[in-house]
Amino acid sequence: MRFIKKSSKKAGTSPGTLVHVGDERTEPVRLYLIDYDEGSLIEREISGIEAAASLKDRPTVTWINADGIHDIELMEKIGARFGIHPLTLEDIVNTGQRPKLEDFEDYLYLVFKMLSYDAEAETVRSEQISLVVGENFVFSFQEAAGDVFDLVRERIRKGKGRIRKAGSGYLAYALIDAVVDHYYAVLETVGAKIEEIEEQLMEDPEPEVLETIHELKREMIFSRKQVWPVRELLSGLTKSDSPLVHESTGIYFTDVYDHAVQVIDTIESFRDMLSSMLDLYLSTISNRMNEVMKMLTIIATIFIPLTFIAGIYGMNFDFMPELHWRWGYFAVWGVMLAVVLVLLVYFKRKRWL
Amino acid sequence: MRFIKKSSKKAGTSPGTLVHVGDERTEPVRLYLIDYDEGSLIEREISGIEAAASLKDRPTVTWINADGIHDIELMEKIGARFGIHPLTLEDIVNTGQRPKLEDFEDYLYLVFKMLSYDAEAETVRSEQISLVVGENFVFSFQEAAGDVFDLVRERIRKGKGRIRKAGSGYLAYALIDAVVDHYYAVLETVGAKIEEIEEQLMEDPEPEVLETIHELKREMIFSRKQVWPVRELLSGLTKSDSPLVHESTGIYFTDVYDHAVQVIDTIESFRDMLSSMLDLYLSTISNRMNEVMKMLTIIATIFIPLTFIAGIYGMNFDFMPELHWRWGYFAVWGVMLAVVLVLLVYFKRKRWL
Amino acid sequence: MRFIKKSSKKAGTSPGTLVHVGDERTEPVRLYLIDYDEGSLIEREISGIEAAASLKDRPTVTWINADGIHDIELMEKIGARFGIHPLTLEDIVNTGQRPKLEDFEDYLYLVFKMLSYDAEAETVRSEQISLVVGENFVFSFQEAAGDVFDLVRERIRKGKGRIRKAGSGYLAYALIDAVVDHYYAVLETVGAKIEEIEEQLMEDPEPEVLETIHELKREMIFSRKQVWPVRELLSGLTKSDSPLVHESTGIYFTDVYDHAVQVIDTIESFRDMLSSMLDLYLSTISNRMNEVMKMLTIIATIFIPLTFIAGIYGMNFDFMPELHWRWGYFAVWGVMLAVVLVLLVYFKRKRWL
Amino acid sequence: MRFIKKSSKKAGTSPGTLVHVGDERTEPVRLYLIDYDEGSLIEREISGIEAAASLKDRPTVTWINADGIHDIELMEKIGARFGIHPLTLEDIVNTGQRPKLEDFEDYLYLVFKMLSYDAEAETVRSEQISLVVGENFVFSFQEAAGDVFDLVRERIRKGKGRIRKAGSGYLAYALIDAVVDHYYAVLETVGAKIEEIEEQLMEDPEPEVLETIHELKREMIFSRKQVWPVRELLSGLTKSDSPLVHESTGIYFTDVYDHAVQVIDTIESFRDMLSSMLDLYLSTISNRMNEVMKMLTIIATIFIPLTFIAGIYGMNFDFMPELHWRWGYFAVWGVMLAVVLVLLVYFKRKRWL
Amino acid sequence: MRFIKKSSKKAGTSPGTLVHVGDERTEPVRLYLIDYDEGSLIEREISGIEAAASLKDRPTVTWINADGIHDIELMEKIGARFGIHPLTLEDIVNTGQRPKLEDFEDYLYLVFKMLSYDAEAETVRSEQISLVVGENFVFSFQEAAGDVFDLVRERIRKGKGRIRKAGSGYLAYALIDAVVDHYYAVLETVGAKIEEIEEQLMEDPEPEVLETIHELKREMIFSRKQVWPVRELLSGLTKSDSPLVHESTGIYFTDVYDHAVQVIDTIESFRDMLSSMLDLYLSTISNRMNEVMKMLTIIATIFIPLTFIAGIYGMNFDFMPELHWRWGYFAVWGVMLAVVLVLLVYFKRKRWL
Repeated sequence: MRFIKKSSKKAGTSPGTLVHVGDERTEPVRLYLIDYDEGSLIEREISGIEAAASLKDRPTVTWINADGIHDIELMEKIGARFGIHPLTLEDIVNTGQRPKLEDFEDYLYLVFKMLSYDAEAETVRSEQISLVVGENFVFSFQEAAGDVFDLVRERIRKGKGRIRKAGSGYLAYALIDAVVDHYYAVLETVGAKIEEIEEQLMEDPEPEVLETIHELKREMIFSRKQVWPVRELLSGLTKSDSPLVHESTGIYFTDVYDHAVQVIDTIESFRDMLSSMLDLYLSTISNRMNEVMKMLTIIATIFIPLTFIAGIYGMNFDFMPELHWRWGYFAVWGVMLAVVLVLLVYFKRKRWL
Repeated sequence: MRFIKKSSKKAGTSPGTLVHVGDERTEPVRLYLIDYDEGSLIEREISGIEAAASLKDRPTVTWINADGIHDIELMEKIGARFGIHPLTLEDIVNTGQRPKLEDFEDYLYLVFKMLSYDAEAETVRSEQISLVVGENFVFSFQEAAGDVFDLVRERIRKGKGRIRKAGSGYLAYALIDAVVDHYYAVLETVGAKIEEIEEQLMEDPEPEVLETIHELKREMIFSRKQVWPVRELLSGLTKSDSPLVHESTGIYFTDVYDHAVQVIDTIESFRDMLSSMLDLYLSTISNRMNEVMKMLTIIATIFIPLTFIAGIYGMNFDFMPELHWRWGYFAVWGVMLAVVLVLLVYFKRKRWL
Repeated sequence: MRFIKKSSKKAGTSPGTLVHVGDERTEPVRLYLIDYDEGSLIEREISGIEAAASLKDRPTVTWINADGIHDIELMEKIGARFGIHPLTLEDIVNTGQRPKLEDFEDYLYLVFKMLSYDAEAETVRSEQISLVVGENFVFSFQEAAGDVFDLVRERIRKGKGRIRKAGSGYLAYALIDAVVDHYYAVLETVGAKIEEIEEQLMEDPEPEVLETIHELKREMIFSRKQVWPVRELLSGLTKSDSPLVHESTGIYFTDVYDHAVQVIDTIESFRDMLSSMLDLYLSTISNRMNEVMKMLTIIATIFIPLTFIAGIYGMNFDFMPELHWRWGYFAVWGVMLAVVLVLLVYFKRKRWL
Repeated sequence: MRFIKKSSKKAGTSPGTLVHVGDERTEPVRLYLIDYDEGSLIEREISGIEAAASLKDRPTVTWINADGIHDIELMEKIGARFGIHPLTLEDIVNTGQRPKLEDFEDYLYLVFKMLSYDAEAETVRSEQISLVVGENFVFSFQEAAGDVFDLVRERIRKGKGRIRKAGSGYLAYALIDAVVDHYYAVLETVGAKIEEIEEQLMEDPEPEVLETIHELKREMIFSRKQVWPVRELLSGLTKSDSPLVHESTGIYFTDVYDHAVQVIDTIESFRDMLSSMLDLYLSTISNRMNEVMKMLTIIATIFIPLTFIAGIYGMNFDFMPELHWRWGYFAVWGVMLAVVLVLLVYFKRKRWL
Repeated sequence: MRFIKKSSKKAGTSPGTLVHVGDERTEPVRLYLIDYDEGSLIEREISGIEAAASLKDRPTVTWINADGIHDIELMEKIGARFGIHPLTLEDIVNTGQRPKLEDFEDYLYLVFKMLSYDAEAETVRSEQISLVVGENFVFSFQEAAGDVFDLVRERIRKGKGRIRKAGSGYLAYALIDAVVDHYYAVLETVGAKIEEIEEQLMEDPEPEVLETIHELKREMIFSRKQVWPVRELLSGLTKSDSPLVHESTGIYFTDVYDHAVQVIDTIESFRDMLSSMLDLYLSTISNRMNEVMKMLTIIATIFIPLTFIAGIYGMNFDFMPELHWRWGYFAVWGVMLAVVLVLLVYFKRKRWL
């Protein structure tokens, strides 16, 4: 059930208790550290959080990405070392969060969903991403290993653009931007599918089209539920007076916000399109049914009376004068022809032919 | 009628008159007292409110849970001892309340609905919960005995988390949170049902699916009506300037508020899903009908002319030259075959075959 | 036409001209006076407004109820004696008003609709109620004699609750509350009908169900149109800074406001329910049609080929070798049985049987 | 195309260029002048605007009504003499305006639509009305001669009500009120038609009902588009701080505003009603189809097997033992009766009979 | 895919990197310069941006139109010479922008969509237009060569209206106005098509109507998505406190804003109309189907029993007394006639005839 996470393990625990809610995982959580400023760049996988703690107080930007959130012990250590509120930790490990922004003076906590299109299962998958943005560190938490942030790493390595000069807020922007870019990728796939179905509908719709439309509709309902609150989150970020969001970064957040709004607009347009396509399909079916019925009715209406006439003269009464007439047989054919002609004219007038 | 409570007994009485509106009950109302602070914990069932009145002025948090609201006399006593406004008492005993928050300087009055899924009747049940939150006491009123608050009691007993250190506002939060957690449980059940139906729809939909979809839709309409105002209530609580909601508790209320919003989002998504599923079902039915009709039309269109031909030569006219031809019978078979072939080609072209 | 009142008589008159718009009535307008304070109570029917004018300046609350608004002359007298603005008088006698609140410093003018369910005609009837609330007088105008305010009178007589102690604002509250209570009564009736229809739908829906659903839908559209502005009116009253609405009365108006919102919520839920029920009904019809069609198709598809075979051997050709075979007749039966078996297997596979 | 005016002549001209957009007209524009204050009244048709220019600076209210806007030259003269901004003139002569209010310190410019029901064409017609309200003059521009303002003229002549005493703002109110009264007239006609259709639907719906419903729906979409912005306009007028809208006039504008809101409410209700009626019609059709199909199925299912049996014994095989049985013929009748009985019982059980 | 631009090339680049996203083009980008004030006018095509840079600091208004955005190098030069922010340049060359307004103190950046109706493909095409409005220069960027701004050029050449006297803000207004005028042209085409379809629907709807309705619906969904944010943009412009938008220009922007709102209103009305037309079409189909079914049922119901009777007397039993009756044959005809009459009366009563 993607729409709501089972949180039965969770019910009744006091707030601040870390309980992992999400798919069961056993692989160890890998931590990947990048520490940079304009001049220097350290990049390595680290085995424990202790290795990174010392970097916390240096002015360089320290970005630690965890590709798993099921290691409760590790989370608690991170919390202790980096001063992260238990409530934040609790939210990070619970994948059933609604996207939101929380300002804990020392850091900003952002949680939102990454969407990706699983071509095989033909569904949209969602993964929870949490960001903890401190003055000179950023923690990013993914549910599992993935490549969504690779391009950001690349940019840091190459020292391209503003990224190496700007602070942790700008890094946060780059990470959110990478996630929002993924929304576009999902929409492009869905958009291509919609165009495909539309073409099929115009030509020769198969009943399978129905299921595809339904599935896309469901995916759009799901995506909308995931992206809508991201818009609020980004709007909040734009208006935030947190010192962590520098004024110069504001314009970038406005940009991502615009993208999120565009994603939602497109989802809405797609839903409207899908509804319209369903209507079209149903109408096409109705039309065909109508055609089938007309065919049946024309055939039946013509032959049923003829067969009746033939039946009449198939009767075995001793006294049936017509049977003995010289031209009786041909007269019957004449009557039948007349019936057919009258009916054809009738159907022509009714515009059935 | 779950949507609106019969309040005929109520009409025309002056405000402040206590009239129990709800299911008739006769069992005695049980009062359960928990009195605690960081160090101490008293917990026992009490037979009358007098036993608790003395605790009112002690700085410990006194939580009294009543599992019934039909004992008007008791309610009046509680009102008198704890200074609860007659209007509040009136609302507590009337289960037809819309969820709301009222600030009577001395205490906050909160009324909302607990939802639970009755698996047997396949309906969502709603029970009214009232909270009266004073400076160092909390009254909770349920319609009937239930276990929704058990986990909170457990947490108090174990002294886990903040609960023993924080005041009455935090206890109120814990109680609301327990109720909102129940919403999730309901949604999980409904979500599982939706997935089940969806699978069935893709395979071989039975007409019973229709009723299930309708019932789930109705339950979602009902749930939405119950939960929507809870959102307003919690939003009001978050913005409240009542001294009973400490600043440090604010963040917890924001959390429950987020949960309520997520519940509403999910209900909306479910309603959209159910609508889409109904469309799918109806379209499937249309498709099948179409297939059935085609079958009938093909069979009829092929055999009706053949039967007519057979009828012709079953006539008993004296003068029917064909009957006496040597190869007449076989010629007729030939004509019939030709008719069948022509029709088959026609249907093939029409893509009916 | 309940949705919009014919106001042709009205068009083009200057504002402030009294023209009665509403059902034609001829019975005399009866005025009923109740004058009370905590200690005293005068109650009697009065024949003219002169009798009451002297009470206007006494500190007691004077409530005059008029059960008719078609006596223009009387209205003008009331206006003159009690200082009511011509525009207010004009609105009172025009039953096509949209519910609204107007603050004329000396008095508040409230106009809204009472709803009642006419069980015979199966429609919701609406009656316009106007209140003019001055410092120590309240005028209430009904379109015709009715018992909606009887319970308020009873309360005044018995001196129960706050009513005898509080001023004219509280009386206004009591009157509005009586009207809103009537909304509940209407909804209860409609709710009961909805439950009834639903049960019927699950069992064996008759076509009449359709009309009932449509009628209930129409009544809900109508009721919504009537109640929606009442919500605005009450919201305005809650926020009003008129000295006529004492602070202590505010909480009561908030209460009625909550009720009005609940009424609107319920109307919306009912509309959703009715839509869902219509869908259910239509789908049921589709399902049945499908079943009927399958039946026909199965019967026709089995017998049409058989009848054709029988027809073949009913032909009278001189040379039909099969006719003279010893076992020809029984072979035909065999062929027919084979055809039936093949078709039955086919239908079984198609899951039509 | 009523929904959007062809403005091709217009595209690319600079703002302030007067281009008449609307139906082609050739008749001369007539100007009708009324100049009044409490004591005096001048009323006459004038041939040119020069005649009126002198009245501009007198404290009397000067109302000039032009029943045509296609005389560009005249418009320019009016603009020059009365100091009307070119942009305003441009809007006046372009009938494709969206209703709006513009405050040019010296005057208020109001443009809105008058609706009238053209009974013959069964459509709602819209005509653009522009008002230019200066301190002591009012210009009203109609697209063509019409009688909508006749009642206002009558009131001025008779000196009834406030109209002669109040200033230009009040006159503007009276003119808007006259137009809004026309909306009611349209709604009454539509309402009556809806009631008519509804009755017809309950009895014996003809297919023509469909087109009527569609047409009314279209007219409601059109009317809504015309009236919705009038609401904004009037709301703006109510809140306006222009000195031309005296405080004492405010209450009158609030009144018209209420009427406009009521018109929109009613349009919405009508649209809901029409949708519900379409549903009802479609369901009725479905029901009938079902009935027709049942009829056919019952007849066919009963007679097809019987005809088959008759066909069997119409075969001409030499060896058909049954044919020679003494009671064969009667036995066949017996079998047929049995088949009929079994089928009737079956249909009875299925509740088709 | 018009709904969302493929931006795969774009993903993961740092902000400020210029990547052209849009249709591939190879033709060189042409720059067209117009430099004017009230007295002077220079107009010529320029080969490079250097030629124009000197004009930047002169008080005349310099308008440079680029009819292509795929020349990244050129864009960078423009950016450098005219002080345009890299983020702005990035947005200009990415045709997947959502319409928006951005205020970079030195200039305003506006991006929006031009719509045009491609009569051949029967779709609405959208082209991205970017405006950079500085104190005395305006840059306009089109995706490809087009004539949308020709009329503005004409006005500048002729020196008509305010355009030569007003500054860059007014020029920006003129350009936006030209684009919004194009929206009207699209709506007119669509409106004409809708009227055409409607007429067709009333007479004799062909199945192709369905596809046309669907296509128009899709175009309206698309157009709405494009125009809706333009409304926000213009609203922002109206409220802007940028010194580039002079107070005197404000009224013009309000005018375009009104037009955009009217365009959106019309799109909504068109969508409502199309939905209503689809309903009408489907209902018409249902009606026809009903008629067809009735026809079939009447014919079948009349002839099936008759054929059965004829079949009876076609049987070859040795002992069939009726066959030897003198009037047997005529009696059968009598029975048949009676059956027909009974059925006709029955159908008449059922109102099928």
